[in-house]
Amino acid sequence: MEKIEHIGIAVKNLDEANKLFAKLLGKPHYKIESVASEGVRTSFFEVGGIKIELLEATRADSPVAKFIEKRGEGIHHLAFAVQGIEKEMDQCAEKGFHLLADAPKDGADNKRIVFLHPKYTNGVLVEMCEEKKN
Amino acid sequence: MEKIEHIGIAVKNLDEANKLFAKLLGKPHYKIESVASEGVRTSFFEVGGIKIELLEATRADSPVAKFIEKRGEGIHHLAFAVQGIEKEMDQCAEKGFHLLADAPKDGADNKRIVFLHPKYTNGVLVEMCEEKKN
Repeated sequence: MEKIEHIGIAVKNLDEANKLFAKLLGKPHYKIESVASEGVRTSFFEVGGIKIELLEATRADSPVAKFIEKRGEGIHHLAFAVQGIEKEMDQCAEKGFHLLADAPKDGADNKRIVFLHPKYTNGVLVEMCEEKKN
Repeated sequence: MEKIEHIGIAVKNLDEANKLFAKLLGKPHYKIESVASEGVRTSFFEVGGIKIELLEATRADSPVAKFIEKRGEGIHHLAFAVQGIEKEMDQCAEKGFHLLADAPKDGADNKRIVFLHPKYTNGVLVEMCEEKKN
């Protein structure tokens, strides 16, 4: 894990949350992006080199919708930048962590991503992400 | 809000969680500190310039104990470094955020800290912290 790449926050209404976080952080979001495979619409803020990603569910069965239904709005995941995501996945599995997918998926912000099961990381949903090579 | 200073994670057993996060992050915690006023024992990890603070409750009525009772282990708060915490508190109040204390308290890691009520920040417990001047 090289560095914290972003912190994901589940919100019910992205447009309202964008206004609120702009007020809190003193600057607006710099982009909005939808990720159909995850069923989310996301917005990004930048604070001191770290991104804050707001996530709004776009369908009832999206993981973010389920998270909000169960726990309410709030911090959803913690994402670490990695180099060589497949190798990192192998190492995590060897160490006893449980991956939520067999291969990285496309995420927002030009990333390949994979999550670790929070049951084995003290309740923290950990994402590993790697910039896509274009 | 200048930068993300740390991410706080509520855990049931600090010693066990320290081992697990060392395995996840590839390096051990660099210090342990108790904060009697908050009823917590904390440990710190560093990843790419950002701190991860694990928090274990030291008494049943500590906010961390209540958090775990209600929501289970997991990400507890997001802390931003500020300069001039009293001024930031005034500005937050003016913007409609709700402070959980009238004045900063002593926190871990040589900081003065204050929290914003998560009800007004999309369920995110936001901490503002400032390095104490010694």
